[in-house]
Amino acid sequence: MKTQLNKRKIFNDPVHGFITIPHELIFDIIEHPYFQRLRRIKQLGFSDYVYPGALHTRFHHALGAFHLMRKALNILKIKGVKITEQEELSASIAILLHDIGHGPFSHTLEHILIPKVSHESVSKIYMKELNKQFKGKLKMAIDIFEGTYPKQFLHQLVSSQLDVDRLDYLTRDSFFTGVNEGVIAYDRIIEMFNVKDDQLVIDEKGIYSIENFLIARRLMYWQVYLHKTVLCVEQMMIKAIERAKDLIREGVKVPASDALQYFLVNDVNVAAFSKSETVLKNYSMLDDNDIICGLKAWRSHDDRILSLLANAILDRKLFKVEMREKAFSHKEIEAITNEVSKKFKVSKKDAAFLVLTDSTTNHVYNPSENGILIWTRNGKLEDIAQVSDQLNLSVLTKPVVKYYLCFPKEKTLSH
Amino acid sequence: MKTQLNKRKIFNDPVHGFITIPHELIFDIIEHPYFQRLRRIKQLGFSDYVYPGALHTRFHHALGAFHLMRKALNILKIKGVKITEQEELSASIAILLHDIGHGPFSHTLEHILIPKVSHESVSKIYMKELNKQFKGKLKMAIDIFEGTYPKQFLHQLVSSQLDVDRLDYLTRDSFFTGVNEGVIAYDRIIEMFNVKDDQLVIDEKGIYSIENFLIARRLMYWQVYLHKTVLCVEQMMIKAIERAKDLIREGVKVPASDALQYFLVNDVNVAAFSKSETVLKNYSMLDDNDIICGLKAWRSHDDRILSLLANAILDRKLFKVEMREKAFSHKEIEAITNEVSKKFKVSKKDAAFLVLTDSTTNHVYNPSENGILIWTRNGKLEDIAQVSDQLNLSVLTKPVVKYYLCFPKEKTLSH
Amino acid sequence: MKTQLNKRKIFNDPVHGFITIPHELIFDIIEHPYFQRLRRIKQLGFSDYVYPGALHTRFHHALGAFHLMRKALNILKIKGVKITEQEELSASIAILLHDIGHGPFSHTLEHILIPKVSHESVSKIYMKELNKQFKGKLKMAIDIFEGTYPKQFLHQLVSSQLDVDRLDYLTRDSFFTGVNEGVIAYDRIIEMFNVKDDQLVIDEKGIYSIENFLIARRLMYWQVYLHKTVLCVEQMMIKAIERAKDLIREGVKVPASDALQYFLVNDVNVAAFSKSETVLKNYSMLDDNDIICGLKAWRSHDDRILSLLANAILDRKLFKVEMREKAFSHKEIEAITNEVSKKFKVSKKDAAFLVLTDSTTNHVYNPSENGILIWTRNGKLEDIAQVSDQLNLSVLTKPVVKYYLCFPKEKTLSH
Amino acid sequence: MKTQLNKRKIFNDPVHGFITIPHELIFDIIEHPYFQRLRRIKQLGFSDYVYPGALHTRFHHALGAFHLMRKALNILKIKGVKITEQEELSASIAILLHDIGHGPFSHTLEHILIPKVSHESVSKIYMKELNKQFKGKLKMAIDIFEGTYPKQFLHQLVSSQLDVDRLDYLTRDSFFTGVNEGVIAYDRIIEMFNVKDDQLVIDEKGIYSIENFLIARRLMYWQVYLHKTVLCVEQMMIKAIERAKDLIREGVKVPASDALQYFLVNDVNVAAFSKSETVLKNYSMLDDNDIICGLKAWRSHDDRILSLLANAILDRKLFKVEMREKAFSHKEIEAITNEVSKKFKVSKKDAAFLVLTDSTTNHVYNPSENGILIWTRNGKLEDIAQVSDQLNLSVLTKPVVKYYLCFPKEKTLSH
Repeated sequence: MKTQLNKRKIFNDPVHGFITIPHELIFDIIEHPYFQRLRRIKQLGFSDYVYPGALHTRFHHALGAFHLMRKALNILKIKGVKITEQEELSASIAILLHDIGHGPFSHTLEHILIPKVSHESVSKIYMKELNKQFKGKLKMAIDIFEGTYPKQFLHQLVSSQLDVDRLDYLTRDSFFTGVNEGVIAYDRIIEMFNVKDDQLVIDEKGIYSIENFLIARRLMYWQVYLHKTVLCVEQMMIKAIERAKDLIREGVKVPASDALQYFLVNDVNVAAFSKSETVLKNYSMLDDNDIICGLKAWRSHDDRILSLLANAILDRKLFKVEMREKAFSHKEIEAITNEVSKKFKVSKKDAAFLVLTDSTTNHVYNPSENGILIWTRNGKLEDIAQVSDQLNLSVLTKPVVKYYLCFPKEKTLSH
Repeated sequence: MKTQLNKRKIFNDPVHGFITIPHELIFDIIEHPYFQRLRRIKQLGFSDYVYPGALHTRFHHALGAFHLMRKALNILKIKGVKITEQEELSASIAILLHDIGHGPFSHTLEHILIPKVSHESVSKIYMKELNKQFKGKLKMAIDIFEGTYPKQFLHQLVSSQLDVDRLDYLTRDSFFTGVNEGVIAYDRIIEMFNVKDDQLVIDEKGIYSIENFLIARRLMYWQVYLHKTVLCVEQMMIKAIERAKDLIREGVKVPASDALQYFLVNDVNVAAFSKSETVLKNYSMLDDNDIICGLKAWRSHDDRILSLLANAILDRKLFKVEMREKAFSHKEIEAITNEVSKKFKVSKKDAAFLVLTDSTTNHVYNPSENGILIWTRNGKLEDIAQVSDQLNLSVLTKPVVKYYLCFPKEKTLSH
Repeated sequence: MKTQLNKRKIFNDPVHGFITIPHELIFDIIEHPYFQRLRRIKQLGFSDYVYPGALHTRFHHALGAFHLMRKALNILKIKGVKITEQEELSASIAILLHDIGHGPFSHTLEHILIPKVSHESVSKIYMKELNKQFKGKLKMAIDIFEGTYPKQFLHQLVSSQLDVDRLDYLTRDSFFTGVNEGVIAYDRIIEMFNVKDDQLVIDEKGIYSIENFLIARRLMYWQVYLHKTVLCVEQMMIKAIERAKDLIREGVKVPASDALQYFLVNDVNVAAFSKSETVLKNYSMLDDNDIICGLKAWRSHDDRILSLLANAILDRKLFKVEMREKAFSHKEIEAITNEVSKKFKVSKKDAAFLVLTDSTTNHVYNPSENGILIWTRNGKLEDIAQVSDQLNLSVLTKPVVKYYLCFPKEKTLSH
Repeated sequence: MKTQLNKRKIFNDPVHGFITIPHELIFDIIEHPYFQRLRRIKQLGFSDYVYPGALHTRFHHALGAFHLMRKALNILKIKGVKITEQEELSASIAILLHDIGHGPFSHTLEHILIPKVSHESVSKIYMKELNKQFKGKLKMAIDIFEGTYPKQFLHQLVSSQLDVDRLDYLTRDSFFTGVNEGVIAYDRIIEMFNVKDDQLVIDEKGIYSIENFLIARRLMYWQVYLHKTVLCVEQMMIKAIERAKDLIREGVKVPASDALQYFLVNDVNVAAFSKSETVLKNYSMLDDNDIICGLKAWRSHDDRILSLLANAILDRKLFKVEMREKAFSHKEIEAITNEVSKKFKVSKKDAAFLVLTDSTTNHVYNPSENGILIWTRNGKLEDIAQVSDQLNLSVLTKPVVKYYLCFPKEKTLSH
């Protein structure tokens, strides 16, 4: 009996309690440097600037989602759904690796450091590479992840509007931010999981929990993920990277770690990424630390815009933010740009790096995608938007757009 | 320094942590037998039949609401709202005593044991009696409770759509039932409390928390307070009491404690209650135990209906429940009554005690009452139903009615 | 798949989350009136007089311990310990029923209402009766409970110095009292469970958790279970029952429910209990409510001692308590008895019912019983008292005795 | 009233709930880049390698300890202890800044990056610098921190064997690691704070909580702070820094951020630190990121030892650790060094960088320092070690030394 002990790796998770690693292959994947890299990538980018506890990483989230996947599969098996051991292992691997493609500060710099390349595409590239290294053992996991495996519900557990990914991140983000309004009944929802017609569905008595899940998710979006201060520092970070790229393009030297330098200098697309080992190698070297160390080196850069942004981010001298439901007009933006240009004595072109504007969209529920299906007591499958008599989901499904504009306060430069 | 120690009574509350009793008068009220009686009245009636942890009492809730009142008053004072020490004490007493009029199993038997008398009326009677005993020291507390005290916001803290009563009970009920979806950010909401134009209002950045509060409250209603199994056992309990009263009226002896006997025999109304010391004395002797001991004595009563109900409740052999959004027609009810009458060999009149039907209504938010006011950044007061752009509060304000029908399963009598 | 749904009963436990009932036999046992009776027996007697949240019942604890048993068996199976399905079911039933023999207020009136009869003996009587009703299906559960089943470790999971009973009650009592110092790492301890030489043992790396478990248990004893106020009210309760019995013996009428009356009048011993159906029937009718209703009826009893005790308990006008490590001498006790006799104008014989003295003993760890065994890395089994280098377990194993004396304060009678 | 809103900064702390910043000076200190730097220094160094949630920072801990300080001062004032507003502010600042001198990875590299300079000395240097910048407003805070302020108990709240520092870090570390055995009753302990003869003391009824606090602290030491895997990675990190310094001394180029380079190249002592602005400036630029980026740059360094250590740390290919209570002899160490030298084909001198050995000491309670004083009911002050009748504190006060030895597993290099 003692013999099995060493293989039983257990993680202490303040969120879910003990997370047991039940299989050697999973253990080996976790041990792989590609996966260990996720220890250095914060789940919520710069959200700790508003919620100081929010320092948890993609590594931790991946383990948590994996844990919930095992629970979900277990419940489904108890309810009589047929799932083979190989499928269980593969679905577990698929969720473990679903975010492995994330780069520094998770979503913050997605599409910025590597334009037009989503973290999902990179996750797939990693999964294929790992499949090679593990001699084909990840084949089924990749099929499940990509949605090409026959049993669709396995893919839906990994990625859908009610996947274990969301169940973990809402719970985890709520825990570490301390925003306990975001608490969802992830265990109850998992208890209500079922499969009908190869679809992941929810037993009818879980309706209230689903409604609560949707509302809690909305709250987390506006209170945490799209908090205006967080959006502001993210925009500042994006501008800093864009400025660095511009400078390099103009021949100015910008110090950075080798890996970061690589992506500042080169334009990489998905095709290149898939083919070139160099890209993957450099990407694998990249994490939050490179960005922060970049900023630290740029504090005293000759380019005033770059150094201003670097100092402002590092010392948390954040820009002023305005957020509203109406887009900012060109006129408004120009007026502020002019003002900034004058006040900070920079050209209007440079001032554009200090007047940040963007919009952010969130919809609670997207009925056009695969919806959340309720298995009613009379045996039908109905979309939650139809069944929920109380939440006006027709309202909730309408995306909400908010526009924001950030620019430096006077004192930003004073220090 | 040591001298103050004895007066500093502290309660250990698993929900809020330590609750400190800061004033001797409050301590003396808590010590009074009237208040101690609340230790024997469960907050949620028979909800423990569904949620076994839900055994907390009105005593505990009153202390918790008192604790939140102190926090709220403190925040308001920090924000510059003028509140005198006497007002602070009186508002604290008002909330401490707001539920002191509750009878056995809280809402379950309200209007049943004593027809047409609400617990609020009884609370007032108790407060007046205590005011006598404490030599007028509760005068201002009574004014605040009744809403006649000039500073309206103090009354609103005690009783409104966003009072500390609700903040405590949602949090507490969620804690003890384990329905953690019901979690609200009571501390954040209290932080957002403010006073404008003598109204209790919410600072604008608290909007999301208020929305969440409304949704969580709705969830608690359907998942806990109006859970169909809970409604069913409550109806069974009500029928048992009604049957006992009927029997007594017909001259049949029904054993009961003196206090319970008093209310089974006598028809009491508010006026009588206020005037007669006997009523108050008997009421003060009454709690959950009298009801349970009544049921236990009725297990072997000659009246089959009474004993059937008593045994079914005590052994949790609950009736079958159907719940739906359409009222049950007379025809449907009659059909089932006939069936029950035949199956259980009782007269149709008696069968009516076993076919329970009622409706239950809940609305998330009532804009016709004093609404929840948001103090917007531009200085206006707006109703949450206007300001909330996302929750369709026009839907949420529509009361939802559900109808239910309960009747014995065959095996109910078999044992 | 849907078909299995109805059998899958789930309990919402604020302590452990969802508790799933995996087997019809277990479901039927829970539904049995004998087991439902536990809903009316508080786990911690009168502890809610100090910790208002401590109202949880034996019913809830039994479910919780059952849940941990399933976890423990699961871990052991994963570690390669052979456990058949029948053993799993039986061990689960054994723990579910381990406390079914408890009477009103759990330990408070044990050996008082029925002198010399422990709750364990009554649990066995119940289990045998249920075994009859369930046609022999509880045979193995009884063997495990009694320790006669060959696999000793199954019995040790039910009853030993580190059984799932203790793991649940410490966790649960800590949760409901709010004494969070009593928190133990029950999940970690269960993870460390193993079996060697048919003994339940702990893997070596669990040592710190075991030490913490012992210390936390000690803290819970002195801070909760043996809290001097709790001891005092328990003694008052015991005296009330003894007084009632005395009065009856003297021919004085003492009102009580039939079931309580039965035990006040009759002297029952284990043998009688096992043989007579009447005893079991009456016992099954008995719970906390009978005692409280008894007290309520005795409030106005002609016997001043009985009514004084009843009022004092119900209104929480508790006696003064002194607790110390030296026994109270006869002289001391007599002096106080005299004083009480004089002050309350009762005979010295009667005064003895108001001067309560007893001692209470607790030892953290009892090395003379089956000890807690650590499976060291070098393959040996060693007693925790030997292995723990830091906690001085030789001290902790020494029982600590405390003596206490309670008597009425002057104002006790005044109201 | 609205006017005060902007100054009321609130932090969301998942551990303590809302932390309110009540004073502009405190707000300004928090905003200062020196304090913001603490956002980039993890509280527990590399402990997240064992407990993935343990990523919280000195910034968060400082805020938490500050919060508890306010609670403690409040309790003391209620108990009648005289504390002026200026003292309250100053004690708050003292605790807020008590750890501001910490360098990268907190204790891990203390005395290594800057030999013989403790973080406390650096904290003082920072406080003096800030005092200048804030025009003398920190004078009293410094006196309290240094223990020269007349009211000793204020210093003891900041730094003693039962200070708010420990109360926060035990609670916080327990929360983020998920080691819930480490939970202490910090709120109860604070409730028991008192002052007698200018000493911070504990009211007698807090004894059990203090015992529990000591035991929980011990558990946290062995289970978290001195976890052998954590000790191992820390030693590896130390060796990497020492190797880097050696190489630089030998003229080999070692890439590093400017700030890190400064401390790798220069030998700094406290005197130099206090006098030279350059040292403080460089130190203020230093945080966890510099170390990680250093390691990342060293992954491919020509020096095999440096690159081996860097890769092993970053990819978490940790060395094998043995921990025991007996020191490792020179012979043992030499044998292993030889083996490593052979296996990894490095000189014996170089092998010494791969065979790490050290000891670690912990004592639960140090009676020779200022002890924890209990204010007994009879008015005396006694040391907890005298009063606690049960915990054998004479054992707990004996320091426990453990020796450990780490060296690479074969596969460490293979990848």
